[in-house]
Amino acid sequence: MDIAEELLSGSRLAMSRAITAVENEYDNAVDIMQQLYAHTGNAHVIGITGPPGAGKSTLTDKLAKEYRSQGKTVGIIAVDPTSPFSGGAILGDRIRMNDLTLDEGVFIRSMGTRGSLGGLSRKTAETIKIMDAAGKDIILVETVGVGQSEVDIVKTADTIIVVLVPGLGDDIQAIKAGILEIGDVFAINKADHDGVDRLNTELEMMLDLNQQKMDWRPPVKRVIANRGEGISELIGSIAQQIAQSRQSGQFSNRRTQRTKSELLAMLDEQIGRRVRKKLSDGGGFDQLVASVESREKNPYIVVNEIMASVLL
Amino acid sequence: MDIAEELLSGSRLAMSRAITAVENEYDNAVDIMQQLYAHTGNAHVIGITGPPGAGKSTLTDKLAKEYRSQGKTVGIIAVDPTSPFSGGAILGDRIRMNDLTLDEGVFIRSMGTRGSLGGLSRKTAETIKIMDAAGKDIILVETVGVGQSEVDIVKTADTIIVVLVPGLGDDIQAIKAGILEIGDVFAINKADHDGVDRLNTELEMMLDLNQQKMDWRPPVKRVIANRGEGISELIGSIAQQIAQSRQSGQFSNRRTQRTKSELLAMLDEQIGRRVRKKLSDGGGFDQLVASVESREKNPYIVVNEIMASVLL
Repeated sequence: MDIAEELLSGSRLAMSRAITAVENEYDNAVDIMQQLYAHTGNAHVIGITGPPGAGKSTLTDKLAKEYRSQGKTVGIIAVDPTSPFSGGAILGDRIRMNDLTLDEGVFIRSMGTRGSLGGLSRKTAETIKIMDAAGKDIILVETVGVGQSEVDIVKTADTIIVVLVPGLGDDIQAIKAGILEIGDVFAINKADHDGVDRLNTELEMMLDLNQQKMDWRPPVKRVIANRGEGISELIGSIAQQIAQSRQSGQFSNRRTQRTKSELLAMLDEQIGRRVRKKLSDGGGFDQLVASVESREKNPYIVVNEIMASVLL
Repeated sequence: MDIAEELLSGSRLAMSRAITAVENEYDNAVDIMQQLYAHTGNAHVIGITGPPGAGKSTLTDKLAKEYRSQGKTVGIIAVDPTSPFSGGAILGDRIRMNDLTLDEGVFIRSMGTRGSLGGLSRKTAETIKIMDAAGKDIILVETVGVGQSEVDIVKTADTIIVVLVPGLGDDIQAIKAGILEIGDVFAINKADHDGVDRLNTELEMMLDLNQQKMDWRPPVKRVIANRGEGISELIGSIAQQIAQSRQSGQFSNRRTQRTKSELLAMLDEQIGRRVRKKLSDGGGFDQLVASVESREKNPYIVVNEIMASVLL
């Protein structure tokens, strides 16, 4: 049996190998993904985002445990674009999940990368598909960092949980509108801290004002993740959201959008690769670069010349 | 006179308008850039990076003032990919520069963006060119955030200053190797704080070990940016570095690399645009998306089909 077959017959090791192949762009990665693709689309993908310090990892941990207690299998992907200035908190977060890693029904993977952020997005999408094909019922995609690229990744989820926490910024205004708009369910973590009532009120007011999502008014749930309080209620809200989303058609609209953007991203990557190959094969690129450097030509003219030569 | 001509004859307003045109992708942006291109290549571009809290903005501020006192004109670009979770510190940093904005010989601009990080890189490169064509002697490119994309932008500078500060992490190990390797000059800021000797020693040891840059051993300079101490010495090191870089050929190698990556980025953007137009004109894209969604085809096959139809 090859890796894809082993994975489909339930091998954890094969799942791990498939993700490694995707991460490192091994030669067999595309082949594995092609075999797995027909077996995807069944998992419920939940994205978890929020400002640093909101306790996203702890919440993800507790959500995974609660889903496990309901008999569901869980995949966890921690998205972490390699920040050039790391602290070490990330490793700490992951270590805390140790008790989960002993559970055969949970599979945890961190996705990071150096350089190509576009690559991170594609690799996360493919890791979701691998866990999905392997039969995970729930896939939790948690952003470790706070960049735009990670938010874009979370946006592709079926359900988006925005985690907030009292006392982090001055007020809700500090969090840019774009984030609040993507939330399907809001979790106010550390709900035993000061300022929780104010944050809750502000959030509810803002959601009242934001009438764009007519068919689903995002609920605000209070949780204390490190004590496990409010988790089953949060999962209840997630279940309601996904049921409503399937009924209203938003679920399939989102998946179509996800498919489109994945196709376009793959296309950009492939075309970029082919164009670079043509340029290096043709040998004329260095001369064009030299003509731009000498200011004989400007880059806009050169790009048009290359466009004419590589494209129909 | 059009914007490019006005800019070349010294208009600050035209410089501001040109940058706005590039930032917002106005129709006239490419035309302006084409006119300006022949007048670029004279400025000394200095990239300033380092972990959050290292005092990059203050140091940038003081470097600008010192260069001004030497009679040089200065452009400052603060690169700030729109983080979805902002605090407000960024605005504070910029406000502190107010006294500089009264100086006609200084031009300050923040570059941010929503979404497209690739776009930020190109727009920053074009803003550098605009300031360069406008005759700025020194262009300081400062990273506000700490993402990989900003580091990639700073990497294109003629001189790269890495700003460190004692007591920020456990030790120098916390800063990933990639960052230390790009530094041409190291500035230890807040040099009156505890731990400066240890940081200095560790840094020197690491630089001794790193023998990759044989023709330039990066110096480590101590500064106290908020009091202006050590700034002229730091500028002395920068002058030595750029002289050495010109002599060794590294200067022109870097500029060639910069030209190449700028051309490739422009090419990717143009091709992406054209492919999207072809796909939307052809009308077949939605059907392909549907066939992928239904698992009738897998995305890899569809991408190959599209590749065959849009490319030679």
